[in-house]
Amino acid sequence: MYLENIHDPSDIKKLNIKQLKALAEELRQEIIKVVSDRGGHLASNLGMVELTLAMHYVFDAPADKLIFDVGHQCYAHKLLTGRYEAFQKLRGKGGVSGFPQAEESEYDAFTAGHASTAISAALGMARTRDIMHGDFNVVALVGDGALTGGMCYEALNDAGQSGTRMIVILNDNAMSISPNVGAMSNYLTRMRQSVTYRAVKRGIKRGLEKIPHVGMPLFRFLEKIRDFLKSLFVDGKFFDALGFSYIGPIDGHDMKHMIRILKRSRDAQEPVLIHAVTQKGRGYAYAETHPDQYHGVAPFLVESGEARSSGGISMGRIAAKELAELAENDIRICAVSAAMTVGTGMDAFQQAHPERFFDVGIAEEHAVTMAAGMASQGMKPYVAIYSTFLQRAYDQIAMDVCRNGLPVTFLIDRAGLVGGDGATHQGVFDLSFLRNLPNLVIASPRDVRDLKKLIALSADFDGPMAIRYPKSGEDLGPGIQAQSGFKIGEWELLSAGSDVMIFAVGRMVQFAMQASIELMGKGLSVGVVDARFVKPMDVNLLMEQAGKAKMVVTVEENVLAGGFGEGVLDILENAGFERPVMTLGVPDRFIGHASVREQLDVCGLSAGKLSERILARYNALFGGRS
Amino acid sequence: MYLENIHDPSDIKKLNIKQLKALAEELRQEIIKVVSDRGGHLASNLGMVELTLAMHYVFDAPADKLIFDVGHQCYAHKLLTGRYEAFQKLRGKGGVSGFPQAEESEYDAFTAGHASTAISAALGMARTRDIMHGDFNVVALVGDGALTGGMCYEALNDAGQSGTRMIVILNDNAMSISPNVGAMSNYLTRMRQSVTYRAVKRGIKRGLEKIPHVGMPLFRFLEKIRDFLKSLFVDGKFFDALGFSYIGPIDGHDMKHMIRILKRSRDAQEPVLIHAVTQKGRGYAYAETHPDQYHGVAPFLVESGEARSSGGISMGRIAAKELAELAENDIRICAVSAAMTVGTGMDAFQQAHPERFFDVGIAEEHAVTMAAGMASQGMKPYVAIYSTFLQRAYDQIAMDVCRNGLPVTFLIDRAGLVGGDGATHQGVFDLSFLRNLPNLVIASPRDVRDLKKLIALSADFDGPMAIRYPKSGEDLGPGIQAQSGFKIGEWELLSAGSDVMIFAVGRMVQFAMQASIELMGKGLSVGVVDARFVKPMDVNLLMEQAGKAKMVVTVEENVLAGGFGEGVLDILENAGFERPVMTLGVPDRFIGHASVREQLDVCGLSAGKLSERILARYNALFGGRS
Repeated sequence: MYLENIHDPSDIKKLNIKQLKALAEELRQEIIKVVSDRGGHLASNLGMVELTLAMHYVFDAPADKLIFDVGHQCYAHKLLTGRYEAFQKLRGKGGVSGFPQAEESEYDAFTAGHASTAISAALGMARTRDIMHGDFNVVALVGDGALTGGMCYEALNDAGQSGTRMIVILNDNAMSISPNVGAMSNYLTRMRQSVTYRAVKRGIKRGLEKIPHVGMPLFRFLEKIRDFLKSLFVDGKFFDALGFSYIGPIDGHDMKHMIRILKRSRDAQEPVLIHAVTQKGRGYAYAETHPDQYHGVAPFLVESGEARSSGGISMGRIAAKELAELAENDIRICAVSAAMTVGTGMDAFQQAHPERFFDVGIAEEHAVTMAAGMASQGMKPYVAIYSTFLQRAYDQIAMDVCRNGLPVTFLIDRAGLVGGDGATHQGVFDLSFLRNLPNLVIASPRDVRDLKKLIALSADFDGPMAIRYPKSGEDLGPGIQAQSGFKIGEWELLSAGSDVMIFAVGRMVQFAMQASIELMGKGLSVGVVDARFVKPMDVNLLMEQAGKAKMVVTVEENVLAGGFGEGVLDILENAGFERPVMTLGVPDRFIGHASVREQLDVCGLSAGKLSERILARYNALFGGRS
Repeated sequence: MYLENIHDPSDIKKLNIKQLKALAEELRQEIIKVVSDRGGHLASNLGMVELTLAMHYVFDAPADKLIFDVGHQCYAHKLLTGRYEAFQKLRGKGGVSGFPQAEESEYDAFTAGHASTAISAALGMARTRDIMHGDFNVVALVGDGALTGGMCYEALNDAGQSGTRMIVILNDNAMSISPNVGAMSNYLTRMRQSVTYRAVKRGIKRGLEKIPHVGMPLFRFLEKIRDFLKSLFVDGKFFDALGFSYIGPIDGHDMKHMIRILKRSRDAQEPVLIHAVTQKGRGYAYAETHPDQYHGVAPFLVESGEARSSGGISMGRIAAKELAELAENDIRICAVSAAMTVGTGMDAFQQAHPERFFDVGIAEEHAVTMAAGMASQGMKPYVAIYSTFLQRAYDQIAMDVCRNGLPVTFLIDRAGLVGGDGATHQGVFDLSFLRNLPNLVIASPRDVRDLKKLIALSADFDGPMAIRYPKSGEDLGPGIQAQSGFKIGEWELLSAGSDVMIFAVGRMVQFAMQASIELMGKGLSVGVVDARFVKPMDVNLLMEQAGKAKMVVTVEENVLAGGFGEGVLDILENAGFERPVMTLGVPDRFIGHASVREQLDVCGLSAGKLSERILARYNALFGGRS
């Protein structure tokens, strides 16, 4: 057992290659053990074991800065930097985050979670070093998936010109989360195969030497045009065009070779890009065979690879199936994913209509504007993106979709509190960053039943629309509008109340109902309205029902600033409404990793907390009842 | 005169090359005449004249889709598509927009304003054509400046793999707005010079044919390795790596050649990129010599090139100078621009501290995360970006800066209503998209005096901060806190009032003061508070002053949804405040081009409109007074 003797990365430097290989095997077993127990990112972390060891062997963290792009491949790094104990509670309250977090360890040089930021951050660090006359190394580790993000290109372009000393390691496993897409991916594949070309070149040279009369003059001739050929070679590579010295492709599992290359790059005085080829899921048969399914996983049985629990109905899959059905009779309907085909459940649409499904890579900005281009010519595109990643496309939603009033529909998955992925993945800002945009309709279904209705409604709506929902949901049974459906902007009264009227959004409707039952047990008359449209609001129902209660409460799984509650306040205030309004939502701070249940509690949004808080306010205003 | 006979692009096709050249000259004169009178984008439009003519000569708009990236180079296009009359009122109410607008003309295939969107939109249109079995051409025209934006790369990556038929014309004038930056720019320069390489290659071939013994065997040998060499050539180019067929570089002012190339590309069955080299400012001596100064201009005298009026004090320049001074004694202070060094006034900082100034290109996302990287290692970066372009970096501000609590300061220029640039450039969303972010301080000075104080304050503040201001401002004289300065989150009571208390932000303070004087003339006692911090708010002063008046008014140059007023409502409501509150701001729609004065009026935010609206509400609530 070597792992238990690694207290910090300096212990790694004491090992020889054979011992490093044994340590790599231990790291793999540890990662499989913990992830199978806790859930998390498996395949990408298994692929990174040797690369991580080589990095720590050559560089001196934390003085040298190791920056993991996205960060979901940092498990080995965490195990090697004094976090073995906390790793056992991976992604849970009190355990390590599944992503690099500066506040968790000095070895995490930059907090990450969203893709394609590492080269930018690394360049900032390198520039700081240059200004401050420091002397550390900066290493950004970027996956080939993250490389489809435009930020990487912006950063390479800037770094390449700056000429400052920094190292980018491209971890190329030919996979993003799903198999990687785009021309760049094809280009990398060609480079992986370019070993052949180099062999051919060597062959030519050897062959020339053997030709008696032609050989030597030709050789001299080649000498003369060497610079010309060299310029072709140098201009020839994408990364060279961007000012980086390219080294590769290299087997990222060959530690001896990786260590040699890293040492050489450490001494370079210019930006270097190392192209390391790795195998996603390496060392766990099920993950090697199905790396996309083992990218991010729920707890599973190591022996069979099977998930331990089902995890509820996937809202995204419901949406995709509904959409696929509508698309049967509507050629305008198409779908776009940004490297999250399976995560968003859109594979269900892809299977039904492959020619109308587009995975554009980790490129949310492009995804949205491309969809706007389609909509401008008569298509009806649905763009499925996680709430937290949609933040990347705020400007494109504003300018290219809403400004033009184009019928693009956003299927916003993972909205609200997300659990183990923590602060960098919370979907609690979308209502705020979307509500300020003119022309946009924003809806949030309370359950899978309403989600289906919203999908159907959106297909007939000729403007920009956003539908936000959490990862999984259930069927809460028919409401009042079960038969008739509803129109854009129409809310639904679920139960009447004369003391308190709760206006709740999305998943919060369910908790609000539970809270209302608890409060009724305390003698209060509490009603609930499903405010399924955050924009436009159902002003008539709002005024009517708010007017019937002594106190109004809004509940949303979103930050309060700029969210649903403030919008309600504005309407009520400008209508001269005088009764007290209480706004409940996610507080003004970043919510760390824990279970969704724990996070709801922390935010005061669980049914129990809701009833407590409402009761306290009610009593403060109107005196105790119970 | 040919121009007066061009009613639509079909008229262009009737002309021969000589006539086209005469028409080009007329277009130039017309553009110089109107822009000198109205202000607008000059240099980029002068450079695009022949290219635009060639595009319309070869393609059949509006059936074929011509998409202008950013769009500030579309003046010739507008003059050629039936908008000669409306062009005379360029950028003014009732005149044409300075950007392509789908609602203005069927010839404007896609509304633009922000950089780097054209290839995405074009790909969306091409895909629609393929799905619908249509038969039109899609042409995206992109400047080399816009090509520094990551979206372009995301789109090229997707388009290159799709293999769908589309044409990208790279308009390479070696300038972004300022001289272009980045490794890509160097790469394009090398390609422009590559004519030499090709000449060398031709020379080699001819030379070989003349060598008696070696020549022929060598030639056969070269035949054998031709494919190998070809693979070097093909892989060799950046755009080829991304799956595009590259053609160029071509002289973009040589219409005959351009027409031939465009015709050939039109018949291609794959994505093609044409690299056209043009001269920014072509045909107007002053603009040729100083294309950066003549990028976007105020009205000027054609003979001398001098501006007709001064245009007030540049807030950005004030900030930059103040910052440059602070940086003398603080090596941590540095500044970042996204291709807007002059526009943001940051050239004043650049001149003083060139080694601590970074222009990263049109790459707002990278700019912000790069700054976060710097801040994480002890620097104190200031990122100067226009409000509307900062929308591009919402996610990076949230995740990389605010999430990590890093001391990056955003200098948000062109905040509020911007006048002639219109709907795509309004800076009226920033308070909303920033206020929902934890850890961020948001300030807005009422004048240049307070701006200086805020800069000084920010230098000592160890966290994320945003300072937003309009293009120009004035010195409103000392307020109460003139001597003592103020702390983070501290507002300032400017005048007391017992009937109405107005809480105003930024430039609106001045209008609120004027409105309060008008209202006092009508017998109302009206006070004004400068709410210079939108986050955190000065809750004490808010509660104290709100409690003294019968009615509270908030005024902001930002949309109401998610803005300052709603934040005030939330505080007051949760504190049990019962008096009426009126929130005034930009309405929930996109505000088109006109003068700033006209836009303020349209939004009801001019001093006159403010006093009218406040009086009307006051009278409705409390009965008439005057």
